[in-house]
Order: sequence, then structure tokens, then C-alpha cells
Amino acid sequence: MAHDKLKDSAYRANMQLPELGLVVFTFGNASAVDRKAGVFAIKPSGVPYDDLRPEDMVIVDFDGRVVDGKLRPSSDTKTHALLYKEWTGIGGIVHTHSTYGTAWAQAQLPVPIMGTTHADHLTVDVPCAPPMDDERIGGNYEHETGRQIIDHFRKLGLDPAEVEMILVSNHAPFTWGKTVEKAVYHAAVLEEMARMAYLARQINPDAPRLKDSLIRKHWERKHGTDAYYGQ
Amino acid sequence: MAHDKLKDSAYRANMQLPELGLVVFTFGNASAVDRKAGVFAIKPSGVPYDDLRPEDMVIVDFDGRVVDGKLRPSSDTKTHALLYKEWTGIGGIVHTHSTYGTAWAQAQLPVPIMGTTHADHLTVDVPCAPPMDDERIGGNYEHETGRQIIDHFRKLGLDPAEVEMILVSNHAPFTWGKTVEKAVYHAAVLEEMARMAYLARQINPDAPRLKDSLIRKHWERKHGTDAYYGQ
Amino acid sequence: MAHDKLKDSAYRANMQLPELGLVVFTFGNASAVDRKAGVFAIKPSGVPYDDLRPEDMVIVDFDGRVVDGKLRPSSDTKTHALLYKEWTGIGGIVHTHSTYGTAWAQAQLPVPIMGTTHADHLTVDVPCAPPMDDERIGGNYEHETGRQIIDHFRKLGLDPAEVEMILVSNHAPFTWGKTVEKAVYHAAVLEEMARMAYLARQINPDAPRLKDSLIRKHWERKHGTDAYYGQ
Amino acid sequence: MAHDKLKDSAYRANMQLPELGLVVFTFGNASAVDRKAGVFAIKPSGVPYDDLRPEDMVIVDFDGRVVDGKLRPSSDTKTHALLYKEWTGIGGIVHTHSTYGTAWAQAQLPVPIMGTTHADHLTVDVPCAPPMDDERIGGNYEHETGRQIIDHFRKLGLDPAEVEMILVSNHAPFTWGKTVEKAVYHAAVLEEMARMAYLARQINPDAPRLKDSLIRKHWERKHGTDAYYGQ
Repeated sequence: MAHDKLKDSAYRANMQLPELGLVVFTFGNASAVDRKAGVFAIKPSGVPYDDLRPEDMVIVDFDGRVVDGKLRPSSDTKTHALLYKEWTGIGGIVHTHSTYGTAWAQAQLPVPIMGTTHADHLTVDVPCAPPMDDERIGGNYEHETGRQIIDHFRKLGLDPAEVEMILVSNHAPFTWGKTVEKAVYHAAVLEEMARMAYLARQINPDAPRLKDSLIRKHWERKHGTDAYYGQ
Repeated sequence: MAHDKLKDSAYRANMQLPELGLVVFTFGNASAVDRKAGVFAIKPSGVPYDDLRPEDMVIVDFDGRVVDGKLRPSSDTKTHALLYKEWTGIGGIVHTHSTYGTAWAQAQLPVPIMGTTHADHLTVDVPCAPPMDDERIGGNYEHETGRQIIDHFRKLGLDPAEVEMILVSNHAPFTWGKTVEKAVYHAAVLEEMARMAYLARQINPDAPRLKDSLIRKHWERKHGTDAYYGQ
Repeated sequence: MAHDKLKDSAYRANMQLPELGLVVFTFGNASAVDRKAGVFAIKPSGVPYDDLRPEDMVIVDFDGRVVDGKLRPSSDTKTHALLYKEWTGIGGIVHTHSTYGTAWAQAQLPVPIMGTTHADHLTVDVPCAPPMDDERIGGNYEHETGRQIIDHFRKLGLDPAEVEMILVSNHAPFTWGKTVEKAVYHAAVLEEMARMAYLARQINPDAPRLKDSLIRKHWERKHGTDAYYGQ
Repeated sequence: MAHDKLKDSAYRANMQLPELGLVVFTFGNASAVDRKAGVFAIKPSGVPYDDLRPEDMVIVDFDGRVVDGKLRPSSDTKTHALLYKEWTGIGGIVHTHSTYGTAWAQAQLPVPIMGTTHADHLTVDVPCAPPMDDERIGGNYEHETGRQIIDHFRKLGLDPAEVEMILVSNHAPFTWGKTVEKAVYHAAVLEEMARMAYLARQINPDAPRLKDSLIRKHWERKHGTDAYYGQ
């Protein structure tokens, strides 16, 4: 009973993913955290969205141990666990294999910031973590995927409170946010930014990245101290 | 009560944008003008389309001051205001981040007139205003966006009664028309023209623009003095 | 009353075009012929599909003169009229600005026969009539569009009973068939073939056309004297 | 009566193909096998999906002879028959002309393994059988198509229990599985992998294939002896 609300929140976020066209079959998962209890609710592994029910969500702690739930949690659970453990400000995580985001990940390239649609959400290219080295792959793979993400943020000097998305090379996008609803929103926004950047570069391979003054302006009008976007 | 009809008109136009696949989440806005009253109704800022109601529309004058409404108007309000102020013949404005139109804007290129689908609507490439200089960006940004649009039309010698759409570099499309319904229609037509021109140039990078005689013919059969298109 | 059945047939064909994703707004038209009466029913000009009713169809003779109907017929009526007049075996005509077909027309290139999907329907590239010369454009334009189509078929030695589709350069596709239902089907098939050929050439610009033995085999199993496709 | 269950299984699989966006009109077919009875149920030839009923399915033996059913079976029946005869472990087969899979087949190229979406399903590129030589085309064509598939698997040393899909050059995909439901799933997965690989190579023509350590890891977590994906 204790986890009903958390399970329901994770359930609704998971169900949004196919509705937004971000996942087919079982290619994705969303989780929502309860910071006080030190646990998160995540989709069970390999269960089709059509069959999913709120009570199927699995409750897991930040070391990836199942605390509550009859089903096996998502195979990506340890990635979620590590991100929650290290990034204490995030409230939800989403992983998809959305088409354009995954294509950039397979191209092993960050999504360049080409326009204000992008700058409304982040001031840098969507980072793309390099492929893991073989030692990490052979080890605790999903835990190491989380480590790869955190290392890449550290290397680039990025703050997960400001840049709420990443591509993992040859794999696919991960996004997060203060809430799982925000994480879902970022997954959808990333997909659209990835699609627009793809098309822009196809139309004009030499099209420049957005200039700094415009990046700052769009970010500040939406997220700065004098923000005037939204209510 | 005075503005109910105007709000309703703006509301219906805004709701068409997601239906036509031109906006996701809150990435767009439509406004409708009342020339006698010297005001226009526009979408409130950052409100998702699913939650939008006619009474949420905000009434604003041509200097961008809120005249009526409880919510903050769209962050792009000052762009709309300036266009209404300077271009006295237009009755509605639409701004979207539609995928293909935005991709051309990010490529910093006009959409070339490649076929009769385009020529049925305008006789020139869809203009693409250059990126703003840093002074304008640092100033009254949304007002300056309107200024950028008007300046580019003046520079190219275009008449906003004949060319009812523009791309703003690195940003996205703006369209307008005698009514807000027409502005919505132009937003959808621009997106389709942008998609077709993208594909045509991918298929044949050397494909020429439409020749002048065909441009004139298609424009005249739809808009000329002896027009015979429509009822 | 006399034309009710013909109007209904044309009406239903027109309504299929937006359902199949082949037209937006008013960008297309379908017509059905009554060979005995020497007339055809065609969509009225510029009427949105949502508002269209069977009784709105316009009855026209093979010289393009309105015989019955309160509305002005499609602006492309004279193209339909000439094709019916000269090609006495066809029962219906469809004109769309479908995205991929139009892109190839704007690229001024025939759609190459790249696979068996294409060969199941025709044994040659989808022909692409060249842009009209200025004299024809300045003359009876829509009649001359029909002339351009017929001339191109003659030049290539094609039989409209075997090749039931064409692109008009810088314009868009026209398709036909023994019935208007078949013409609608060909419009949809052309769009899919155009999309597949576009993608195949993007993936491999040197990909060859289908070899003759396969072209013949697929055509014959579906249309030859020993055809064994279908019931 | 004996074949009711088999027919129903094949019927439901066929109906999924248009629902999943994998076929338009009659461009595809699915079959389900009954190993004990030595027969399979397959879609009748050329019947639109809207008109299809479970009782329309045709029962055929492994030499392609109709055992039960009033309609003519799919023109691809002999390809299915040979695959069932030679590959005794498969329970269902699907053939589609899905857009991206067919585009790669028309490009005459295997779909390269670019990411973990692919590696979750197979450890090699999706094989692409070469175009048939003219002797085979002129012979028992659909039987020879099956032969072409089996020969290509043999040449590459592939096991149909592990690689459950192939492209036939200039034609389109064939997929299979332990059940017909799995075969349908593989048809949908192939289409998405083909689309992602297309986009990745457009973004970065030099993007490498997935490295071996990641291929093995993803395959093993889903299909290995210590698999931990799914329930």
C-alpha cells in the first residue's frame, strides 16, 4: 500500500511513452523516485505496454535491489539506480529507443544546437557518451552504463539539473527531470530536436550551430531569474 | 464580454495547430485581431493545448500591453503586436515550430519554389530572415523579431498581402493572412512545401527552381483578376 | 437524377484521397466517366473534403463544358477531359500532390523501377513529362497539361492501358485506371513506390534498376496470360 | 473444422500487419504451421485486409499443394512451403513490403548492426540475399525464392533459429519465428532497425558497426543462458 502512489506515477509515465510515439513494443522504461523512502518504481522487464498495470511496477532501492513487486524489474534498472544515487536532485528517469535520438546515438554524435527549439531547453549540444570500453561491458553492464553517463557529464562539466538528457553511443537516449512527468517531456523534446537537427544538416551540411547570444537569450527567457515564459 | 468572439476565434485557431500536426506541447501560438478595437487575442504562455479554454485567451494592444485576461500572454506577443501595428492589412498571425519549416530555418535558407504546389500560394521562395545581430537580441527581443521580419520584407521588396509567410533563421516559421483561419492554413501549406522542397533537393540536388512562366500562371489562376480556382 | 450513380462514384473516390494520406486541404481531385453518356463527374474546385457532398460533383463533357452541377468544376477539369477524350479505355482519373510523388516531379526525374513492388504494377520507370514550353503555359493551360501527358506517352511508346500513371514535371502525379477505384489505388501505389525509390537511392546512390527478367516475371505473374495472383 | 485453430492463428497474424503499419493494400502475408499435420495456413492471394475472414485462410502442405480452402493461396505460398520444409524449427513466416526494409532490399545491401536495438534481436547484419540468376527466375519462381534464402543462409553460415529475418534483393523482407506471433514481431522490429540504420548512416556515413563486445553482451542478456531480460 505504501508504494501505491509512486507506482501509479511511474505507471502513468510509462504509458505516455507509446502514446507519444517514443517506444514500440517493450523498447523503453520510465521510473519515479521517492527520495524520503530511498526507492523508485520502475517498469517490469519485457512486459508489453498493452498488458501493463499500475500494480506491476517494481519498487527498487538505489543499489538496484527489489524491495517490493512480484515481477523482475526492467533490465536497465541498475542504470536508473546509479543515476538516482549520484544525482540527488532528479525525480524521474526515462529511457527510450526513439527513432531519431537513437539514430544520432548510432551515429556516435551529439545533437548539435541548431535553433531556438533546442535553446529553449538546454544551452549545449545534447551530449553523446562514447561507447563503453570492453572491461565495463564485460562487468556490471547496466551499472556501468550509468557510470558512463555520469563520467561523461563530469568530463564535459555539465550539471544534470541544467542538461537533462544524454545519448549513449550505439544505444539510445536517457532523459530525466525534477519529476517523471518532466523526464517524459524531455524524452519527447529530445526526439523532436534530434529530428529537426537531422533535417537541417541534410538541407545544409554547413549550417552553423546557434550563436551564443541567441542561446543565452532563449534559455534566460524560459529558465533565467527574469524568465517570462509560462504562467 | 466584449472580446468573447475574438477570443473564440483565436482559441479555435490555436486548437487547429496540434490537430494539423504543426505543434507539439506548447511550441506555437495563433492570434486574431480586432482592427476597430485596436487589440488582438493571443494564446497564454506555456499552457498545454489540452488544457486551453476560449476564456484563457489574452487581449493585447498593438504595443504589447495586456488589456484583458488573467494569464500572461505568449512570450512571442510583442512579435505579433509589431506585425499588426505595421502591417495594417493582416487579420491573424500564426507561429509554429513545425518540423520541416523549422529545419529550413535552422539551415538558414529560404524554401525554394520548386513546383506548382508552392506557386499556387506565392510567387517567390519562402523568405528566410537572417539571424539577428547581438544588439537586437540583447534588447527587446520579441519586438526585434518582428522588426527583423519587417526589415527583411522591405529589403526584398515583398508585400505582406502577397507573401504571407516567413522563416526566421535558427528559429521557426511565422505566417499570417486576412483572417486567422488563413494564417493557420498558410502554416500548414508552408510545412508541406518545405517538406516537398527538402525531398526534391535530396532526390536531385541540381533540380532547378520553377520557371517564371509557370509561377505566373499558377498564381494568376488562383489569385489573379481572371482567377478561376475555387467557387 | 440521371447522374446520381456517377456522382456518387466520383464522390467516394475523392473522399478516399485524404483517407489514404494523399491530399491535404483541396490539393487533389478524382473523376469517374460514363462512356455511354460521354460525360464525367469531377470534384468542384476549391471545396474542402470535409464539406464535400455527392451532389456537389460536377458533370462535364469531353470538351470540358459543364453539363450538370451548380458549382465550378476543378481547375484541372480540362486535363481530365482531354485524357478521357483521347484515351478511350480509361474509366477514372486521379490527380494528387502526394508528397513523394510530387518531390520526384519537382526533381524532374522519373521514379526508377527498383523493386518488385514497382514491377507488380508497371514494367517501366514512372514517366515524368518535361516542363511545358512557355507557349503552352500561356495558352489553354490545363488542356495543354493533358496534351503534355499524351505527347510524352507517345514519345516513349507507352500504352495508357499498361502504364497507368505519370508525373508532370514541377507539378505532381496523375493516375488513371479502368475504374476510378483503380485510379485511386494507382495514386496510392505510386506514392509508396516513389517513397521506396527515394529511400533506396539515399541508402545506395548506385543501386541499379531492377533487371529485365525480374520485371517480366513479376508483371506476368500478376497481369500476364498465366497470371496466378489474386482470385 | 480440423484447421480452425490454425486458420485463426494465421488470420490474426495477417490482420496485425496493416495495424503495425507494415503493409498497405495486399502487399504482405503471414502463415502459421501445424508440424504434426504437416500443413500451414496462409492468406489467400490478393484479398484486401478489410475483407479478410478467418475461414478465408488456405491450408497448404510443404510442397505447396492446397489441402483445404476455397480461395487461391498467396502467390508467395511456395516460398513459405520450402522454408517450412527445410527449416523444421520455425512455426510461422511473415512477408511484407514494409517501407524501410524494402528500401534496403532495393539498395541490395544488408542492414548493418549499428546499435543495441539491433543487437537485442540478432548478432549480425540483417542478411540480404543477392538477386536471383535468370534461370531461377524463369523457373519455379516462388520456390526458387525460398531456395535463394536458404542458400544465402548456408553461404553465410547462419542458423535460422538465431537469425530470424532476411531481405531478398530488389524484393522485400521475409521474417519467421517459433510462432507466427514472433514472426510478426520480427517483421516490425526489422522495419524499425532498417529505419534507424538508414538515419544513422545519413547523419554519419562513417559511423561504425556495433563492436563485438556490445553485440555479445546485448544478445546474451536477452537470449543467453544467464538471460535476465523479460519475465
